[in-house]
Amino acid sequence: MVNKIPHIVVVGAGFGGVATIRALADVKAKITIVDRTNYHLFQPLLYQLSTAVLSTDDISFPVRAMFRRRDNIDLFMAKATGIDGKNKVLHTNHGDIAYDYLVVSAGTTNNFFGMENVRKYSYGMKTIQEALHIRNHVLHMFERANKQIDSEQVRRQMLTFICVGGGPTGVEEAGALAELVAVQKLDYPNLNFDEVSIKLIEATDKVLPMMPENLRNYTLKVLRKKGVEVMLNTAVADCSEEGLFLKDGTFIPSKTVIWAAGVRAHGLVATLGPECDRSGRIIVEKTLQVPGYPEIFAIGDNAHFEQDGHPLPTVAPVANQEAVVAAANIKKMIKGQEKLREFSYKDYGSMATIGRCQAVVSWGYLRIGGFFAWCIWMFLHLLRLEGTHADITVGTKWLWNFISGTRLGRIITNIKFDEEQ
Amino acid sequence: MVNKIPHIVVVGAGFGGVATIRALADVKAKITIVDRTNYHLFQPLLYQLSTAVLSTDDISFPVRAMFRRRDNIDLFMAKATGIDGKNKVLHTNHGDIAYDYLVVSAGTTNNFFGMENVRKYSYGMKTIQEALHIRNHVLHMFERANKQIDSEQVRRQMLTFICVGGGPTGVEEAGALAELVAVQKLDYPNLNFDEVSIKLIEATDKVLPMMPENLRNYTLKVLRKKGVEVMLNTAVADCSEEGLFLKDGTFIPSKTVIWAAGVRAHGLVATLGPECDRSGRIIVEKTLQVPGYPEIFAIGDNAHFEQDGHPLPTVAPVANQEAVVAAANIKKMIKGQEKLREFSYKDYGSMATIGRCQAVVSWGYLRIGGFFAWCIWMFLHLLRLEGTHADITVGTKWLWNFISGTRLGRIITNIKFDEEQ
Repeated sequence: MVNKIPHIVVVGAGFGGVATIRALADVKAKITIVDRTNYHLFQPLLYQLSTAVLSTDDISFPVRAMFRRRDNIDLFMAKATGIDGKNKVLHTNHGDIAYDYLVVSAGTTNNFFGMENVRKYSYGMKTIQEALHIRNHVLHMFERANKQIDSEQVRRQMLTFICVGGGPTGVEEAGALAELVAVQKLDYPNLNFDEVSIKLIEATDKVLPMMPENLRNYTLKVLRKKGVEVMLNTAVADCSEEGLFLKDGTFIPSKTVIWAAGVRAHGLVATLGPECDRSGRIIVEKTLQVPGYPEIFAIGDNAHFEQDGHPLPTVAPVANQEAVVAAANIKKMIKGQEKLREFSYKDYGSMATIGRCQAVVSWGYLRIGGFFAWCIWMFLHLLRLEGTHADITVGTKWLWNFISGTRLGRIITNIKFDEEQ
Repeated sequence: MVNKIPHIVVVGAGFGGVATIRALADVKAKITIVDRTNYHLFQPLLYQLSTAVLSTDDISFPVRAMFRRRDNIDLFMAKATGIDGKNKVLHTNHGDIAYDYLVVSAGTTNNFFGMENVRKYSYGMKTIQEALHIRNHVLHMFERANKQIDSEQVRRQMLTFICVGGGPTGVEEAGALAELVAVQKLDYPNLNFDEVSIKLIEATDKVLPMMPENLRNYTLKVLRKKGVEVMLNTAVADCSEEGLFLKDGTFIPSKTVIWAAGVRAHGLVATLGPECDRSGRIIVEKTLQVPGYPEIFAIGDNAHFEQDGHPLPTVAPVANQEAVVAAANIKKMIKGQEKLREFSYKDYGSMATIGRCQAVVSWGYLRIGGFFAWCIWMFLHLLRLEGTHADITVGTKWLWNFISGTRLGRIITNIKFDEEQ
């Protein structure tokens, strides 16, 4: 069976998975993408969905449409549940898939560090569904507070929004929430907006740790000016339906705790066996192969790759660069070449947005914060977004948001309609 | 208490409710809008949400943002459950609201004509949630059929889409589904699209009954050319999870029955007492007052108003025109004037779209079908849509749809993620 076309299975249609398939453009193989959803989600803009700037369709793009011109690619929409590396089979909730090469790029899920109540009562921010839950819930809180004419205490609890985690997600979410509140202010003449409070809670002494100190300080200044109360060196102890308990014994009454404090690798990864780090990532070889399984590659948030003594961060550029090497190595193996490429990450820097007209960008010697950084941030995100139509609609919405200062998507959609409405 | 400001309560933020409040612009009164949702839904484009052309936010607009400049207006987001006309109190699931004047414009809900299984197994098309259910379900059917490599019978059942009702909703939905199928065809190289079937079922002998005969025939021709099987004089008997039973004994295997065959007035209306018609609409006075309750007005789909021997149709223009008269009469009553305006409907005609580049328009002597009618349809819908931003995004998406022929929103969003994704 020398002429049998190999079957490459890619788990996950995130940045890593999509980049892998792009890099496998000219390969003579059958490629199957396995994903729970039928779309590629542009995660960096999820916070804009959760704060009513963008719509679902703006930041998600059908996987099939991305690879429409390549007939050797099919999507298998299913939940990957386990890997049988010995028999080269991927288990899914819609049946098993045999593979010759497997790329594990299943991404991450929220890490609640074993705090069951936090898992139960806080809002994660990893999926479209979670982002919509946050949007619906936050907007609902304003409607409910507006009806609470008797109790300031109840209103204050409803109008206290807590983001936990000072990384890019937490910072961007807190900044965008502050702007959403400013828009809401115009629409609730009977609400006292002094009762609204946005808190950003971070366990360490800094936000955006990957940024240089001056940009970190700039970020703090901008967030505080927007009305975000930044609480550094503050650790979470527990959570309930009524609020958040801190390690120092403080209780903050709130109906909205948004969890952006940590991620861990998709549970699928652990079913494989090889050694994982604390975050559930596989400690991979220099070639990105999984130890003991040369035909399995782990990339992106599923791979623990050490460079200069530190594991690489769980960010999109790492996944994209790893995808190229994993794809190259699969092609080499198909051709029977023994010498595979070793991965090395080139760090071009990082950026984060804090709000309208304000972002921080750190690229080598370029370290800026403010309007120009925001323009760079916008331009690059539009470039990286899938689909021309999304560029147009997102660009239009951002322009409109910039001009009018409003939020287009303040629609509460999780209403349960019974038969009688 | 001569100087007490009257309280006008408007139930429903649909076309009638919104037009009433607009017409009450200069009134010295407190106005409360009661709606289950926080948005005004542009119902005529709901079928485009259900067929992945537009997004939720494109066709829904926050009610508070519409009346931001008028401080005497507030939204009370709640489900109106009953009217106590004697004590002038509206009951809601968030408490009672006392009114001096009440406008009942709560719209309609699906009418399943007592067929319990149809209610249970078919898909309604009245709310954002229902439209998204249809979209998710239809897209899912393709993914599932693509995995059914063994059974043509199962695939055919999954790929049979039935619209019941030959009015504008059914026709527009069937036409848009046919176009969605054409787009899907590009993305499923392994599916045999001869197995796909779209059926439009109508109990009478015509579709779009309000249109002249030549445009009705044109509509049939266009639908059939698109691949829609139009079944006239075909009555539904029952429905199950596996398909649709017709009165003649035929069973059509299908997982997708979209119900656009009838509406009835919101259940709230019946709690008032006065005589209602078969569709649950209140038979109103010439002044649009509810018999026995001069301070209550019923308009739009909640009012049965006879003109020229026929009740007016349940369409937006009727609601809009009635709103103006109801508002005028409330203003007269506040001023103590006894002579109220009597309503008379001016019919400007109707239109419906059958698909990309094809619509029918019937305005007096102008009776056209085709591309020019479609341009008129698009232009007028953009004009009537709330919010400049929606004009821009919807206009952009339509243009993109026209140029590229693709569907932007083919995203399945109702996936249940458990903790492990």
